[in-house]
Amino acid sequence: MNAIDIINKTKKKNELSESEIKWLVSSYTDGDIPDYQMSAWLMAVCLNGLTETETLSLTYAMRDSGKIEKLDIPLTVDKHSTGGVGDKTSFIIGPIVASCGVCVAKMSGRGLGHTGGTIDKLESISGFRTDITHEEFEEILKKTGFSIISQTDELCPADRKMYALRNSTGTVDSIPLICSSIMSKKLAMNADCLLLDVKYGSGAFMKTREDAQKLADLMERIGRAAGKKCRADVTDMNSPLGRCIGNALEVREAVDVLSGRSKGRLYDICIELAADMLELAGKGTVDECTALAKDAVSSGRALDVFRETIRLQGGDPRVCDDTSLLPQAEHKFVIRAMEDIEILSIDSEEIGMTSLLLGAGRVSKTDKIDMSAGIVMNCDVGDKISMDGTIMTLYSSTLSDFSDAAVRALGAIRFRRI
Amino acid sequence: MNAIDIINKTKKKNELSESEIKWLVSSYTDGDIPDYQMSAWLMAVCLNGLTETETLSLTYAMRDSGKIEKLDIPLTVDKHSTGGVGDKTSFIIGPIVASCGVCVAKMSGRGLGHTGGTIDKLESISGFRTDITHEEFEEILKKTGFSIISQTDELCPADRKMYALRNSTGTVDSIPLICSSIMSKKLAMNADCLLLDVKYGSGAFMKTREDAQKLADLMERIGRAAGKKCRADVTDMNSPLGRCIGNALEVREAVDVLSGRSKGRLYDICIELAADMLELAGKGTVDECTALAKDAVSSGRALDVFRETIRLQGGDPRVCDDTSLLPQAEHKFVIRAMEDIEILSIDSEEIGMTSLLLGAGRVSKTDKIDMSAGIVMNCDVGDKISMDGTIMTLYSSTLSDFSDAAVRALGAIRFRRI
Repeated sequence: MNAIDIINKTKKKNELSESEIKWLVSSYTDGDIPDYQMSAWLMAVCLNGLTETETLSLTYAMRDSGKIEKLDIPLTVDKHSTGGVGDKTSFIIGPIVASCGVCVAKMSGRGLGHTGGTIDKLESISGFRTDITHEEFEEILKKTGFSIISQTDELCPADRKMYALRNSTGTVDSIPLICSSIMSKKLAMNADCLLLDVKYGSGAFMKTREDAQKLADLMERIGRAAGKKCRADVTDMNSPLGRCIGNALEVREAVDVLSGRSKGRLYDICIELAADMLELAGKGTVDECTALAKDAVSSGRALDVFRETIRLQGGDPRVCDDTSLLPQAEHKFVIRAMEDIEILSIDSEEIGMTSLLLGAGRVSKTDKIDMSAGIVMNCDVGDKISMDGTIMTLYSSTLSDFSDAAVRALGAIRFRRI
Repeated sequence: MNAIDIINKTKKKNELSESEIKWLVSSYTDGDIPDYQMSAWLMAVCLNGLTETETLSLTYAMRDSGKIEKLDIPLTVDKHSTGGVGDKTSFIIGPIVASCGVCVAKMSGRGLGHTGGTIDKLESISGFRTDITHEEFEEILKKTGFSIISQTDELCPADRKMYALRNSTGTVDSIPLICSSIMSKKLAMNADCLLLDVKYGSGAFMKTREDAQKLADLMERIGRAAGKKCRADVTDMNSPLGRCIGNALEVREAVDVLSGRSKGRLYDICIELAADMLELAGKGTVDECTALAKDAVSSGRALDVFRETIRLQGGDPRVCDDTSLLPQAEHKFVIRAMEDIEILSIDSEEIGMTSLLLGAGRVSKTDKIDMSAGIVMNCDVGDKISMDGTIMTLYSSTLSDFSDAAVRALGAIRFRRI
């Protein structure tokens, strides 16, 4: 086999065999195929696509490039969200599902973007560690049913190398490549059940519902073909998920939801996704599972799981009862209505970019995150705000001049005078 | 500007500006853009194409990456053939046109393939040098009107670097990329008139007449847009050009044509292309130019030019009168008809592959060429051959066991029993 023949096949839309894809991925991971050949192939995939059989082969090849997780736990569920602005569902759903007796073993990344990744958000809790060993991970799972470990170098090295290349060659936005990147990591984590949350809209990677549905369907079929109980939901990300965007701010909001203090769209989505996970794990019908999930919150059991997991991962468990112990911003800036208005829409993407400006996210891998920075939306779509009422509040410890961020934030809001 | 935005534009079929293309090419040539970004862009071009304006910008950018030739000669013509099996037209047409008073200043490459390139073929003449200086080149041109210089590193470094990358990333077969690669070198050679010979068929790069016509039309428009008198002809390469394939064998055939001993398809094509060049250079109508070209051969003036150019470039001029002074193969193998047959077709590509097996060509840059190796076709399409009559003769100094080559050569011939 040689790389040029493989590139030419994809260029001419001829299907690659499983062994060709396996060879391509392992040779690239081993450094036997140079970046410039891989990037040409990736561009051919972006423009010509891959068949479902090829996508499955690619997913397997990437999964098999590293270690495959094996936990000494009879039934585990895993969840993946394609990510969006203000998405803190992982550490809300995890404790809910765990408190219903189903083990949630989650691996997360840091990633680049508007805010940090799930790992960064949790690290805003003083002392919280995600670089735990396999043994610690398993032990916490056995005790609380919920743990989050940061992605290790042993898992899917092929994906890590290919993703870095895609990021610098304009070859990120391809449904088969996105699918195989996500699914290879999920299959390497090797949970029995897999819930996939594919977001669409302004703050999400997939801009349209149709594309999100395509990706969701493909991931679901790939997951099932690989022998997993798998379900993919498509959810709206046109406005931010919840009212808080930023690392510590999102942990605070998660605690508010888990304690039952905060209801609304975020609570509803978390209950829905948790119910789907419970159903996948065989805990009953959707209605029964929805009732289980709601009870987990109202009884305080879900918050108990979160508190205990934080403690076992080295973090300060008191944040579950007093969120003022989370990092607090040194500066804040309140954006008020200058007349009586009604909020028509909130552009997630622009809100995300504002939070990046405030210091909450990373542009390059080495950037340092301001854990206290972010945005609290004091309004939602459809709300009416009187003159001088608060639209949103910006927080930062690194920025004291909020003028650019305020202009950007306000530009994200469409409203009408009432 | 950044490479990812440019890659994305081409991926989405948005037209690049002249300054974007200029930046891309010069940054790549300078090493500021890595191979893996360039190869992703090249693949996007292969699959999405470029507009004619973009192709012109690319051609200019590549031309401007190096030196632009300036000769102290009032009018020069240049010729380019896209190459095929047995194509020795450059050193037949050059002397014909030069002997009619039009200066042919030609730069050639070595290249990989079935036989060597024009430069290799000429180097089969003992002592012949093509690594001459600019001053020697100009001096020979002033004396004989015809000289061939090997491609220097100063000319179109962008093309050299991009071509090597295309060769190893499956991104060679793209009409705008082929066009800009050829035309950038031709524009850098800066002749006043340009004749382009685009071949199609089994032994050629373009497999169909339609694709060859597209490339020819595009190159002609690009040449004219750049201010050159330019014409592109499309010629058939389904069967080999002439009867000899191989380096020294092709020089022998060129001498045979120039001396008027050999007529037939090769002679006809050379007269036609020479007449087109003379017409471009303003020497009269096509009919007048055809008569001029024929007279150049029959009078012996064309062969005189070739002889004198060989002498001035350090070669043994006696080969023009005694071709047995050219390298002779140590071994030969005659393929004879086993019954009475009629030749229906000859597959150029397979004949070319046979000549490569015999040692006449290169697979990788460092391969050494057997100057004496090659094939003489003793028949043409439509010929009838009696049992035991000679179909073709294989020559080699490196190979003594001809069994594989003979099978391949015979497989290239379609015939019927008569």
